[in-house]
Amino acid sequence: MPEFFNVLPPDDARALLLEHLTTILPGETIPTHESNGRVTSEAICAPQALPAFRRSTMDGYALRAADAYGASESLPAFLQVIGEVPMGRAADVQLGSGDAALVHTGGMIPDSADAVVQVEHTQRIGGDTEVNQPYEIEVFRSVAQGQNVLQVGEDVTMGAEILPGGHLLRPQDMGGLLALGITSVKVSWKPRVAIMATGDEVVAPNQETGPGQIRDINSYTIAGLVAQAGGIPVYCGIIQDDFEALKRAAAEALSNNDMLVMSAGSSVSTRDMTVKVIEELGEPGVLLHGVATRPGKPTIVGTVGAKPVLGLPGNPVSAMVQFDMFGTPAIYRLQGVAVPPRRGLVWAKLSQNIASESGREDYIPAKLEDAAEGLLASPVFGKSNLIYTLVNADGLIKVPLNKGGLLAGEWVEVRLF
Amino acid sequence: MPEFFNVLPPDDARALLLEHLTTILPGETIPTHESNGRVTSEAICAPQALPAFRRSTMDGYALRAADAYGASESLPAFLQVIGEVPMGRAADVQLGSGDAALVHTGGMIPDSADAVVQVEHTQRIGGDTEVNQPYEIEVFRSVAQGQNVLQVGEDVTMGAEILPGGHLLRPQDMGGLLALGITSVKVSWKPRVAIMATGDEVVAPNQETGPGQIRDINSYTIAGLVAQAGGIPVYCGIIQDDFEALKRAAAEALSNNDMLVMSAGSSVSTRDMTVKVIEELGEPGVLLHGVATRPGKPTIVGTVGAKPVLGLPGNPVSAMVQFDMFGTPAIYRLQGVAVPPRRGLVWAKLSQNIASESGREDYIPAKLEDAAEGLLASPVFGKSNLIYTLVNADGLIKVPLNKGGLLAGEWVEVRLF
Repeated sequence: MPEFFNVLPPDDARALLLEHLTTILPGETIPTHESNGRVTSEAICAPQALPAFRRSTMDGYALRAADAYGASESLPAFLQVIGEVPMGRAADVQLGSGDAALVHTGGMIPDSADAVVQVEHTQRIGGDTEVNQPYEIEVFRSVAQGQNVLQVGEDVTMGAEILPGGHLLRPQDMGGLLALGITSVKVSWKPRVAIMATGDEVVAPNQETGPGQIRDINSYTIAGLVAQAGGIPVYCGIIQDDFEALKRAAAEALSNNDMLVMSAGSSVSTRDMTVKVIEELGEPGVLLHGVATRPGKPTIVGTVGAKPVLGLPGNPVSAMVQFDMFGTPAIYRLQGVAVPPRRGLVWAKLSQNIASESGREDYIPAKLEDAAEGLLASPVFGKSNLIYTLVNADGLIKVPLNKGGLLAGEWVEVRLF
Repeated sequence: MPEFFNVLPPDDARALLLEHLTTILPGETIPTHESNGRVTSEAICAPQALPAFRRSTMDGYALRAADAYGASESLPAFLQVIGEVPMGRAADVQLGSGDAALVHTGGMIPDSADAVVQVEHTQRIGGDTEVNQPYEIEVFRSVAQGQNVLQVGEDVTMGAEILPGGHLLRPQDMGGLLALGITSVKVSWKPRVAIMATGDEVVAPNQETGPGQIRDINSYTIAGLVAQAGGIPVYCGIIQDDFEALKRAAAEALSNNDMLVMSAGSSVSTRDMTVKVIEELGEPGVLLHGVATRPGKPTIVGTVGAKPVLGLPGNPVSAMVQFDMFGTPAIYRLQGVAVPPRRGLVWAKLSQNIASESGREDYIPAKLEDAAEGLLASPVFGKSNLIYTLVNADGLIKVPLNKGGLLAGEWVEVRLF
C-alpha cells in the first residue's frame, strides 16, 4: 500500500485502479438487435462473405466492359438488352457478346457481365416497347471492368475477424453482425454497482428535512452515471455513520455485486471511517486516498479482490466528477473494454480568467453559448460543490495539471457533462 | 411544396423540417430518479431554499467573527468551546461573546454564530478532555463574517425557476430536483418511431439469403439511434416494393406512432414510390427530396400533420448518417427540446488528403488513434456505403459545405459516431 495518503495526479490514479481490475465479468448470449451499449466477450468472425454476390451500385445495364470499349457521345456502342434482373432474385440472364441486362441499384450482376453502365449514360432506341421484349440501347461512355460493381467480399471476406473481444457495441456494429446473419452475440454481464450513502444528516429524497438534515442525492446522480456507462445501479440506501453498521452493509453489498460506491461523507472523521471499512473488507484494500484534482481531492480508491470500491466525497459535485473519473472507466473495464469510449468534448473560447494551482487538475462547471466568434464558455458562479452549478452547466472546463490557470479569450477544452 | 426536388444544404434542410414540427408530445409524470434522458414538459420552480439552513463548509468551530478579529500565530484569540453541533441535528448551542461550537463539514451553524474557522487554524488547549465538557481553543487566523458558511438559498432561492420546460434531464438535474424533495417530474412522452424496411431483395436477419437477397439491417441500426435519442423504436417489418402495400403499411404505422422512418430503397423507382406514398399520407407531405451531402443525397424529408416522415436511402451508411442528421433532432424536437444536445466531437490531425466537392457536406468514416503529435484521424477505406466502413470507424470527419477537400496534417473535426 505504498501510495496510501499520497495525492496522485488523476491519470496515474486511474491507471493504478485499472491495473488492479484484472477480472472480466462472465459472458451471456443476447439477441444482437438488443446489444447496443454492451461489450463483446469474444472475437467474432464472419461466417460468410459480404456481399455474398456481385451487386450493382447504380441503376443501369450490366454488360461486358469490352463491348463498350471506346464508346462516347459521338461514337456510341450499340447493345441488345435481353432481360432484366429483378431485385432479390438470381441474375440468370446469360449475356452473349453485345448483350446487356437491365439492373437496379443493389441488384445482382449476371455471371457473364463484368461492369455496369449508369442508365444516365445510355439511351434506349425506339422508345418503350412491350415488357420482356429485347430492345437496343446506345451507350455513350466506356466502362472499366468492375466499374459500378461491388465484388463478393468487398465489405467483409469470409472468416475475417469483424469485431474483437472487449468491443463496445454501437448501432452500426449491430448492423454489421445482422448483415451476416449473426442474430445473437456473447457479451459481458452488465456490472452490478452497489451504491451506498452514508451520513447521519442524510435522509431519503421523499422525506421532509428537519434542521441540519439534507436529502440523499448522490445515490441517484451516481446511479444515472452508472447506467450511462452500461452498469446496473443497485441502491443500498443510507447507512448511519457507525463503523460496524457501515462495514456490515459494505461487505454485504460487495458480496452481492461487482462494484461498490460509497458516498464517504464530508468530514474528515467519516472519510477516515470509510478508509478503515475498505481496508477491512479484504485485500488489497485502499489503493489511494487523495487525487490532485478539484473538486474531489479526498477521493478514496480501492479494490477488494478484483472488485472496485470507491469512497466518493460527500458533496454532490465532487461525487459526480470523481465517479466520472474513476467509476465510469472501472465499469467499462469490468466488461473487458480496454479503452473507454472517447468523451464528448467541444472547444470553446473562455469568457473570463480562471485561477487554479499548478499540480492540480481542475474541473470548472461552464455554460456554453454560440457567439459571433464561435462557442463561448462561461464559468458558472457559486461556491464550489453546489449541485446547481452542475445543473446550470453544459460541461466542465478542464484546467490541466501543469497550468496555473486559464486566460479569458483562450480556447479551452470543455467536457460535455 | 416549393423546395421539392431542390437539393438543400443540410443545415437549411434540417431547419425546414424542424420548423414544421410544431406539436410537442403530451406529458406524463414519472419518478424523478428514473427521468435521466427525458425532457421536462413544463418549467419547475424551487419549493424551498437550498440549503435550507446555514451549513459549514469545513470541519472547524462556529464563532462570531468579531471574536477572532486580528487573530494570528503570534497573537491568537482564545475561545471557549461550549458544545458540538452533531450532524443531522439542529444547532441549538447558544454562543455568547467568546464562545465557539465544534461543527463538521455540512453541519448546521448556530444562529448566534456568523463564521467558521477551520480546525487546522486552531489548537485545543490542554489536550483532550471528557466528552461534553467545555474546553478552550487558540485561534490563529481571523475570519470574515460568513467565511466557510453556506448561506440559506445560496444554491437555490425559494421560488426560483430551476429548470425550464423542454430541458433534457441529466443525472445532475435529477440530483437538483431530489435535493428539493421533488420526487416526481412531468416529462414528454417518449416519441414512438415506426421503422419500416422496403425492398423485394430484403429479408429478415434470421433468414438465409438466396441469390440477390440481403438481410435487413437498417431497421436495427436506426432503432439503436432512435433509442439513443430518447425514442421508442417500433419495428414494422419489411414491406415489398408495391405502392398500395407500402401506402397501407405507412398509413397504419403513422396513425399508431409519432414519427415514421422508411428505408426508401436504393433505386430511383423505389425512391419515387416513397415520395408518392408520403405525398398521399397527408399534408404537407414531402418537404424536400435531396440534401447536399454525401453519403445520403437522395434523402426524402416530409411531415404529415406535425409528424415527421423520413425516407432514408437504402444503403446502410447513408441511412445512419441521414437519420443522425434529421431523425435525431426530430425526436428531440417532438419532446420539446429546442436545441438538441451538443454532439461529442474531437479534434484530430488528418492522416491524408480527402477530396470533396464544394457545395456538398461530406462525412467520411475515420479511425482515431493516439499518436505522438496528438489524435490522428485516418479515413476508413472501402467503397462508400459499406456497413463495415462504419463498424471500423470511431467517428465521421466532416468536410464543410464550402470546402473542396481537406489536406493531410490539417486539424479536423471528428464527430464521434
